[in-house]
Amino acid sequence: MTSVTVNLADRSYAIHIGPGLLDNHELLAASAPARQIMIVTNETIAPLYQARVAAAFAGRDVVTHVLPDGEQYKTMEYLQAILTSLLEHRFARDAMIVALGGGVVGDIAGFAAAIYQRGMDFIQIPTTLLAQVDSSVGGKTAVNHPLGKNMVGAFHQPLAVISDLQTVDTLAPREYRAGLAEVIKYGLIYDQTFYLWLQQNMAALLAREPAALTHAIRRSCEIKAEVVGQDERENGLRAILNLGHTFGHAIEAGLGYGTWLHGEAVAAGMCAAAHMSHQLGWLDGEDVTGLNALVAACGLPTTIPADLDERAMLKYMAVDKKVRQGQLRLVLLSAIGRAVVTSDYQPADLSAALQACR
Amino acid sequence: MTSVTVNLADRSYAIHIGPGLLDNHELLAASAPARQIMIVTNETIAPLYQARVAAAFAGRDVVTHVLPDGEQYKTMEYLQAILTSLLEHRFARDAMIVALGGGVVGDIAGFAAAIYQRGMDFIQIPTTLLAQVDSSVGGKTAVNHPLGKNMVGAFHQPLAVISDLQTVDTLAPREYRAGLAEVIKYGLIYDQTFYLWLQQNMAALLAREPAALTHAIRRSCEIKAEVVGQDERENGLRAILNLGHTFGHAIEAGLGYGTWLHGEAVAAGMCAAAHMSHQLGWLDGEDVTGLNALVAACGLPTTIPADLDERAMLKYMAVDKKVRQGQLRLVLLSAIGRAVVTSDYQPADLSAALQACR
Repeated sequence: MTSVTVNLADRSYAIHIGPGLLDNHELLAASAPARQIMIVTNETIAPLYQARVAAAFAGRDVVTHVLPDGEQYKTMEYLQAILTSLLEHRFARDAMIVALGGGVVGDIAGFAAAIYQRGMDFIQIPTTLLAQVDSSVGGKTAVNHPLGKNMVGAFHQPLAVISDLQTVDTLAPREYRAGLAEVIKYGLIYDQTFYLWLQQNMAALLAREPAALTHAIRRSCEIKAEVVGQDERENGLRAILNLGHTFGHAIEAGLGYGTWLHGEAVAAGMCAAAHMSHQLGWLDGEDVTGLNALVAACGLPTTIPADLDERAMLKYMAVDKKVRQGQLRLVLLSAIGRAVVTSDYQPADLSAALQACR
Repeated sequence: MTSVTVNLADRSYAIHIGPGLLDNHELLAASAPARQIMIVTNETIAPLYQARVAAAFAGRDVVTHVLPDGEQYKTMEYLQAILTSLLEHRFARDAMIVALGGGVVGDIAGFAAAIYQRGMDFIQIPTTLLAQVDSSVGGKTAVNHPLGKNMVGAFHQPLAVISDLQTVDTLAPREYRAGLAEVIKYGLIYDQTFYLWLQQNMAALLAREPAALTHAIRRSCEIKAEVVGQDERENGLRAILNLGHTFGHAIEAGLGYGTWLHGEAVAAGMCAAAHMSHQLGWLDGEDVTGLNALVAACGLPTTIPADLDERAMLKYMAVDKKVRQGQLRLVLLSAIGRAVVTSDYQPADLSAALQACR
């Protein structure tokens, strides 16, 4: 087991990464020290891991809340169902939620914890690569709104994150590859050395070789922890973690949630952001070509779906959370390993990128 | 104009109290410095004050969202409508909400601000006595759930609170008296001198004499600011502000929201808490008699409604946010001016109080 710390003063916590952690009862029991425990999971994950996790809390008051599987269920309606269940079981503010699943489960369960009785504690047990490297770390919680992704939510840090590498072993290939999009993102925005390592080791990662996988997850968590530790509530730096996400969210909302996986939309979004950075003269053409090749090697899309035209994309991009003073700020690249949050571009530049990347 | 500061490090803010502040455009405009402003109010308040407040933001992008009037509309459904309206108008995270109205408006508008795009700024313009002395100050926001009052919410501090004394002048008598319940509460829990002053000046307060009213509001805000400044997120001391509220919330939920006003339920709840404190030998009988007389002089109820039996009350009290380790903690009095948060009582004590106070 290896651990990474997210440094946030009195809200600091550890991310534990290793094989077989789901059966480490001592670690689980100590990470969620409450008398009442609600495990929030989904119908795909529950038969695989629910009993193993519940076993760690034997003797306590444990309730399991099972969601349907998919981004289209990350809504106010399903959030309300979690809150109702907590009340029906008379859970108090000192109860805890255990979010067991991928990014959707972590986001909605974490948001329920953020607002139930004005805030209760929770831990994250992410079971997908995407959740382990991204959504479980940093305290962003949310549900979607029909008019925009993650538009309703809270910053609410977990007490701990426990990532069992074995859960990644059983992921469907499509889901696994979607997680790699966020791994590539960390190299692109923050660490050229890591990006080069990914280019050289993508075959090992695609084969899910334990050593490569451990390095990729650990380095991703370290970068995310470093960025979040400097800017918890996204007043500045943290926005770089959104590379590809403004385009990606528009793709997800435009196609309807659940059509493309989040990681797939982010992959195409990163390619669009790289293309636009090149148009602005900030990034070499060969870096764009290299990124497209790396993304394609993962089996991920490099272009925006043809049925989303410029107008549709702009409509969804306009509600992005990075809009300030009426200007949409984008995360672009000034080099591999260096991201910039900027509104210093012309509408025509964005239009050109949207058209070129379809 | 007089001002009270709530000291909360980087979340500190001022409460401004005075006559005619709604027409102080400079104060309003400076307190909510955003390009996009959503005024959230209700159908009773809107015709009275909406235009005056909107005038202060002339030249900006101002939208008004009007709720129906009443506690029964402080729900997830009406919350969702505010969030949808913010998105439909493409409001960004740097937009601001202006909560114009009583406690219901402030609670639901403040909660919308807390979770829209994971948090936007807002100011409070409370127009009832209850909101001016209590709900607008301290950052508690929430909506009700069918299974319990204020069960879903967040701590989210406003940027400023602006209390215009003239709005209190036009309150219906029932609404005005409900506000006095919270004023009495501050004396009971924290300041014997203020409590004695209230006993001596209740006639002037009931006549809404400006000097008496200003003193009552200012002293109430000072006490609340002092308590909240020591314990923003209710890990300890802050719970004393809940005197009468555990009983009161059960009355409100048991009768159906909107049947009794919040202040009426709190008044009966404070009498029950005082009675129970006396039963436990903590409070003199004459203090209980004196409180009942003061509450009755305000035209407020001193007993729990007869159609709520002990079982109904206990059911709703069991989901109180002060439950810890399965024990319901109550706010009781060890003297006039001194409150105690305790689970040091027998179930029989609570039963006896519930029966004696019906």
